[in-house]
Amino acid sequence: MEVIKTVKDMQRRADKLRLAGHMVSLVPTMGFLHEGHLELMRVAKKNSDKLIISIFVNPMQFSPTDDYDEYPRDTEGDLKKSREVGVDIVFMPSIEEMYPENYQTNVHVEKVTRHLCGISRHGHFDGVSTVVCKLFNATKPHLAFFGQKDYQQLTVISRMIIDLNMDIKIVGVRTVREPDGLAMSSRNSYLNAEERESALCLKKSLDLAGQMYEKGERSPAAIKEAVEALIKRHPFTEIDYFSLCDPVTLEDVQTLGHENLLALAVRIGKTRLIDNCLLRKT
Amino acid sequence: MEVIKTVKDMQRRADKLRLAGHMVSLVPTMGFLHEGHLELMRVAKKNSDKLIISIFVNPMQFSPTDDYDEYPRDTEGDLKKSREVGVDIVFMPSIEEMYPENYQTNVHVEKVTRHLCGISRHGHFDGVSTVVCKLFNATKPHLAFFGQKDYQQLTVISRMIIDLNMDIKIVGVRTVREPDGLAMSSRNSYLNAEERESALCLKKSLDLAGQMYEKGERSPAAIKEAVEALIKRHPFTEIDYFSLCDPVTLEDVQTLGHENLLALAVRIGKTRLIDNCLLRKT
Repeated sequence: MEVIKTVKDMQRRADKLRLAGHMVSLVPTMGFLHEGHLELMRVAKKNSDKLIISIFVNPMQFSPTDDYDEYPRDTEGDLKKSREVGVDIVFMPSIEEMYPENYQTNVHVEKVTRHLCGISRHGHFDGVSTVVCKLFNATKPHLAFFGQKDYQQLTVISRMIIDLNMDIKIVGVRTVREPDGLAMSSRNSYLNAEERESALCLKKSLDLAGQMYEKGERSPAAIKEAVEALIKRHPFTEIDYFSLCDPVTLEDVQTLGHENLLALAVRIGKTRLIDNCLLRKT
Repeated sequence: MEVIKTVKDMQRRADKLRLAGHMVSLVPTMGFLHEGHLELMRVAKKNSDKLIISIFVNPMQFSPTDDYDEYPRDTEGDLKKSREVGVDIVFMPSIEEMYPENYQTNVHVEKVTRHLCGISRHGHFDGVSTVVCKLFNATKPHLAFFGQKDYQQLTVISRMIIDLNMDIKIVGVRTVREPDGLAMSSRNSYLNAEERESALCLKKSLDLAGQMYEKGERSPAAIKEAVEALIKRHPFTEIDYFSLCDPVTLEDVQTLGHENLLALAVRIGKTRLIDNCLLRKT
């Protein structure tokens, strides 16, 4: 496994892989790899010849009140796990390499960033789309893999790819969960034992909404009311948003149709967690 | 010479050129090709194996009050000239191909767009950087050639390339002028005979400033005063901006140094023309 730290070296290596006819995949990460990341890597490896992962905690996607400084890091553990999964190249640039002096460019996706996490995390998705654009240009993949847990991120990247004519296929990979249902996230490490227990309210909300939808409930308000009551029964919780929306535009729907996205963000103490599922007619 | 109209076809063709080991160059244009464009193409052809030009009048870089509808077009003439210069591929997408329904992404370069043309042409450079990013992703060149007449555009694109890690070398090509000094521009076709005469004030301004600088003048205000007086002597003229600035940041300078950019925009009747030159110590 190679570790590459500069954009130029990464590009020369990527050119060689492409000229040799390899199908190259990228899994962009912020490190502190968990089973969710490893699943992305395994799926990517199955679907390509050469697997690149990037590890970069991107300051541009954190607001000043966000948890950039506390964001968990474990480079040695990450490299060990990457090796075990069979990663070919780890691209691990420094902040100075990614944002040199006089840096001043921004990729902005307009409409799909206005909803869900875009409301409370101002500028977050500009940071995401910009850094992913940069990582794509540095690693030149044919395929890139993103987790469905970050559904809006997947939507934003997919939109950017189409709009900017980027010749990359985006693949969404299923959310990996702990045995009790909590979606894997690097931020789960912030939770103490009691908060960890309360954090189950996210998956329980998805399940409850799924049951109501299956029984024929089509009113977003009714589902929202039931979910809010469920979440309130869990201590340390505060809902950031709850949305039943169109899975493409992410705009709230008035009545549930054949396919709907349920997305929510809940603060558990100081930790903000997100989860989502599709409600669809089977 | 091939003419390609869709992004997908262009990308497949570009992949083949790269896999065959060709050095690929791009000259992006809005068509209505003149000697300035042809010079770009000749230089590009000399410095690469395969020359792609794009012809696309980009609505996104025109404001509602700009001249998008009147912008001159001559597809047949453009194709004839391209063939004569030895262009390999003309990429000529439709507006629908470049901006499909639900399009919503924007590449914004922050600081260098605040000056010069960025002041009166609000949003213009977002349109430029976005479409050039799209054209790069569609044609996948190793090299791209831009005219020095659009100095700020060249600066914006160069900044975008660095900031977004685009693996493309940008080359600026000297301004081509009519025998009497007027810089080649598609917009020169708007001028009537009297305006055409007045339009010479741009090149005369550069020459006057150059002479003053050579004689030791280092005060931007003194040069500005002389140039404004010169331009006022020409009928139908109105200065949009006159700037003596840093050639990298485009910020106005208080005293002229070893290398300075003189950039100006002048309205001749309804036609807005730009020109520039470097004032530097030889």
